[in-house]
Amino acid sequence: MAEQRATNITWHAQTVTREDREKLLGQRGVTVWLTGLSGSGKSTIAVAAEQALLSRGRLAYVLDGDNIRHGLNKNLGFSPEDRTENIRRIGEVAKLFADAGLVVFTSFISPYRADRDLVRAIHDAGSEAPGPPSHPLGRFVEVHVAASVETCESRDVKGLYKKARAGEIKEFTGISAPYEAPLEPELVIETGDEPVEKSVERLVGYLDAQGYLRS
Amino acid sequence: MAEQRATNITWHAQTVTREDREKLLGQRGVTVWLTGLSGSGKSTIAVAAEQALLSRGRLAYVLDGDNIRHGLNKNLGFSPEDRTENIRRIGEVAKLFADAGLVVFTSFISPYRADRDLVRAIHDAGSEAPGPPSHPLGRFVEVHVAASVETCESRDVKGLYKKARAGEIKEFTGISAPYEAPLEPELVIETGDEPVEKSVERLVGYLDAQGYLRS
Repeated sequence: MAEQRATNITWHAQTVTREDREKLLGQRGVTVWLTGLSGSGKSTIAVAAEQALLSRGRLAYVLDGDNIRHGLNKNLGFSPEDRTENIRRIGEVAKLFADAGLVVFTSFISPYRADRDLVRAIHDAGSEAPGPPSHPLGRFVEVHVAASVETCESRDVKGLYKKARAGEIKEFTGISAPYEAPLEPELVIETGDEPVEKSVERLVGYLDAQGYLRS
Repeated sequence: MAEQRATNITWHAQTVTREDREKLLGQRGVTVWLTGLSGSGKSTIAVAAEQALLSRGRLAYVLDGDNIRHGLNKNLGFSPEDRTENIRRIGEVAKLFADAGLVVFTSFISPYRADRDLVRAIHDAGSEAPGPPSHPLGRFVEVHVAASVETCESRDVKGLYKKARAGEIKEFTGISAPYEAPLEPELVIETGDEPVEKSVERLVGYLDAQGYLRS
């Protein structure tokens, strides 16, 4: 509140808290971190889940390669350091969105456990904002969108697996670079034989059951 | 929509657009960029404006040093390159918030015209997201929170001007580093003799008159 004393008058606005925003929105802010192989269905699920929440009058937002790699992280490459920084920045931005009261879905392969654990730690550290202690709900939900390499490769919508097999893409997750599956994710969604509708039902059902879709 | 074909089923979710989110919120997403000297009243106005919008049932969010410098931009220093990158990242994040449908207030000195113009250009470039063309409203509103160095120095809540005068802080905006005032800001708020309430009324009145507070 120090900044508020920077004026020459005595009127003080009450700082708006996350809880205030959540009450307005009728939901709890949370980062839903989707991790999985290329082609596992992360983006499909994220987009469909945003739509499902909208139809229930809830505000969600998707962070993905389209709006991050060409914007905030366009000055990052694919070195190990840059990959870690890529995930760190996305985690920090997601935390801001969760603090704003949104359900934010992130759709990135994020193959390394250490990177995802860092993002979880960032969220666990809580908000810098003043106000009452956070509600007991976690603000970080890790979702493993799980499908075998074979399944993802058989889909290969973007032809990336083909290029990876041909050696045209180096260090391709699942082919020539490791994917470290989450050890204790909040949720696992197996997309192998499951229709997207079912996966989304499962995800939204989880958020609902945990209490994120009411304030 | 390419990602959606990455699944083995035929069901497709409709992508949620910015307009959909704005309709849900009853407002238009916009970045309100407050620029001005240390002590000019940026943060006070931002916090109070968020409260004023909340009381009207509108969702806003404040990006400021507290939630940016200790998070997203904690790996940046104060070199010229880092200062520019600091503002660029904030601009990119603000754009995401505006795309999500929020009224986002940014509270940073941002003394250089070139940096602010870059952020404006980032916003003018529009969203990467699919959907109908953006509404005619601009998505970037530059607000010069104007007060003389003398006024700001007389407030000096944090004792920064004193330290700057003593040479303990190098390159302090207004004392030993330039502040480049906006040439064509959407709004100028002179905080010298004006109560904060009046400044906030002016700012919220502008947003209302322009159509940002309805969808």
